[in-house]
Amino acid sequence: MRDFSFEVKKTDKHSKARSGIIHTSHGEIKTPAFVAVGTQASVKALSNEDLKGAGSQVFFVNTYHLYLRPGVEVVEKAGGLHQFIGWDGPLMTDSAGFQVFSLAQGKRKTARIEGLEKDLPLVRISDDGVAFRSHIDGSKHIFTPELSIESQVKLGADIMIAFDECTFYPATLEYSRQAMERTHRWAVRSLKAAENRRLGQALYGSVQGGVYEDLRKTSAKFLSKLSFDGLAVGGVSVGETKNEMKSVLEWVLPCFPFSLPRHLLGVGEIDDIFTLVEHGIDSFDCVMPTRLGRMGTVLIKPENRGKGKITKKWNQKDFLLDLTKKDLIFDFKPIEKTCECFVCKNYSRAYLNHLFRTRELLAYRLATYHNLFFVEKLTEAIRHSIEDGSFCKLKKEWLGC
Amino acid sequence: MRDFSFEVKKTDKHSKARSGIIHTSHGEIKTPAFVAVGTQASVKALSNEDLKGAGSQVFFVNTYHLYLRPGVEVVEKAGGLHQFIGWDGPLMTDSAGFQVFSLAQGKRKTARIEGLEKDLPLVRISDDGVAFRSHIDGSKHIFTPELSIESQVKLGADIMIAFDECTFYPATLEYSRQAMERTHRWAVRSLKAAENRRLGQALYGSVQGGVYEDLRKTSAKFLSKLSFDGLAVGGVSVGETKNEMKSVLEWVLPCFPFSLPRHLLGVGEIDDIFTLVEHGIDSFDCVMPTRLGRMGTVLIKPENRGKGKITKKWNQKDFLLDLTKKDLIFDFKPIEKTCECFVCKNYSRAYLNHLFRTRELLAYRLATYHNLFFVEKLTEAIRHSIEDGSFCKLKKEWLGC
Repeated sequence: MRDFSFEVKKTDKHSKARSGIIHTSHGEIKTPAFVAVGTQASVKALSNEDLKGAGSQVFFVNTYHLYLRPGVEVVEKAGGLHQFIGWDGPLMTDSAGFQVFSLAQGKRKTARIEGLEKDLPLVRISDDGVAFRSHIDGSKHIFTPELSIESQVKLGADIMIAFDECTFYPATLEYSRQAMERTHRWAVRSLKAAENRRLGQALYGSVQGGVYEDLRKTSAKFLSKLSFDGLAVGGVSVGETKNEMKSVLEWVLPCFPFSLPRHLLGVGEIDDIFTLVEHGIDSFDCVMPTRLGRMGTVLIKPENRGKGKITKKWNQKDFLLDLTKKDLIFDFKPIEKTCECFVCKNYSRAYLNHLFRTRELLAYRLATYHNLFFVEKLTEAIRHSIEDGSFCKLKKEWLGC
Repeated sequence: MRDFSFEVKKTDKHSKARSGIIHTSHGEIKTPAFVAVGTQASVKALSNEDLKGAGSQVFFVNTYHLYLRPGVEVVEKAGGLHQFIGWDGPLMTDSAGFQVFSLAQGKRKTARIEGLEKDLPLVRISDDGVAFRSHIDGSKHIFTPELSIESQVKLGADIMIAFDECTFYPATLEYSRQAMERTHRWAVRSLKAAENRRLGQALYGSVQGGVYEDLRKTSAKFLSKLSFDGLAVGGVSVGETKNEMKSVLEWVLPCFPFSLPRHLLGVGEIDDIFTLVEHGIDSFDCVMPTRLGRMGTVLIKPENRGKGKITKKWNQKDFLLDLTKKDLIFDFKPIEKTCECFVCKNYSRAYLNHLFRTRELLAYRLATYHNLFFVEKLTEAIRHSIEDGSFCKLKKEWLGC
């Protein structure tokens, strides 16, 4: 089994973009890489064969969900996530931090548990860790950095993330500082807990600090000095604006060592992808293509919408086509004539419209597949553009003027 | 484009079983053939590629459902069902009779339509045709033999079924006689209406008559004399016992001309398949494998259940494994070790159990695929056994003593 390593192959002259390869014991990840999200050990609606067909190199599994169902011990007994899922490529797991905190800081701060008299707080945070109740059955659990890492080691993904406290936007400076400091203490404990991990399992530290320059830089520098195999930027898909996200990238990335791979957690709209890459992010995960697909919205190049040339700068919504709309009932064209995916080669918008309107299960798979293929093709084009010096040109082609 | 024809290749010495080929303008159907059900122009959860992978030669689309959504004119404009679905193999449509009558005679005899004050009867039958209200939006429609055929001609399937009145078990002799006689008048009108169908579109007549020997024989003889391209046995999946179904087959099939293909509507449990074939049925459609799959139950040879040798005669329930059961959480074996389908080659029972328990969309596709593959492999084995004279041996192997 091969150890984990990262090599930068090429850097862009006009931006911080870089291409490279993450070597894992389950194969290479060419970067910049999109990481699909397979929350419950399944990228929703897609099989492993679909993922390979769509060009996916790696996907994310959420430790929180697996911990609750089917339980880490089931996956461990299967021989780890790769064996459990039947996926032989690279995998990532997260720390469970985001999930327990999003339960705490999202709209639903309490869980109404059947059979109990009143609402119970879902989450309690202390320096030791986070006590929370399962969103499924209300059972009590405590996640500590040690349990997060122990769980991730058993799950056996190629890349793990240190347990962090994710602050949700807006958060005060004081609270963001406290959360960041706790994240740093937890980072040290996570590294210690991961000492017995198998050869080849990488551990990434996760930078926090909200939208505060001072905190973000402090956090990036602190984590860079620890012995992580890579660095992740956390807490940037939690409600802040796209400009605030850019600022965070501008503060954080220059503080990271050049040699370590950098992951961005939970961002990946089409315009974001260019932003991340030009700031030097190597991989990023996002539910966008898969979630949109299940909702009946597919990704499409603006010129394929058939509404004439758009002259303004394109953003995410210019890349969307709602397959469920009435005006597609008689549209017998594929989603995109130029797309090489099996959905575009075999199925029409009218048929997909029918499948969505009649809630046929096939609809979710086909739209998800196309969307993932679309994003994977884009990131592949980005890699090539970095290698041949045309990244800026490609960005202009995709995002307009 | 090739015309429709049927040839019997081989007959079994010890039963009425026969193997043959139905030639259609969209390719051959080797018989005996299982016909998967794609109610709304989609075999639920499966793509066309999946269907081919599972060995499906042909599938059924329900005229009633397509008539309501997306509307026959949409499919016609697409160039017919084959183009609409993107399926280049043979297709069948039914007359819409079963659906409108099952609405009338099922538990729900009335539709509570939003915005209207009271329950409205869903169906009214007259000699002209059937007036019914859509189960989707309560809109009024009238299906006549002419409209059924006009719709089916526009849908463009390779095999169509004449409009019939399906009586549901139990039905009195008198009512069964009335319905049969109406079915006969409708059969004549269906044939007339189908005169302008395209070359290659076959029309099957549908025998009715409930569980009454006299009526069934009368119906079979009457329809055999008309100029149908094939004959279907209707009204045998409507609540009668398996022995009553056998009796119907014993009465009806000897009245059919040897040279016409015979279809059985809506039956296909594992033990039934042998019953149908040994009575001389050439094709049969059933939702069993696909519906069971979506419910988390997969088909499996009894010897693969791992519960020791079963000595009694096996029936349908001996072939079922409930993937959602707790005792499979740690079962890392495939559904069937000996199965060659991609699900068994790549996924474990434990993983499928997890997918079903977490309601992951992938679960429905994988279980459906395995079940369809299972039934297609069985019918393929039956074809081979008829050809090499081992049908009785195969039946004994599959159904025990």
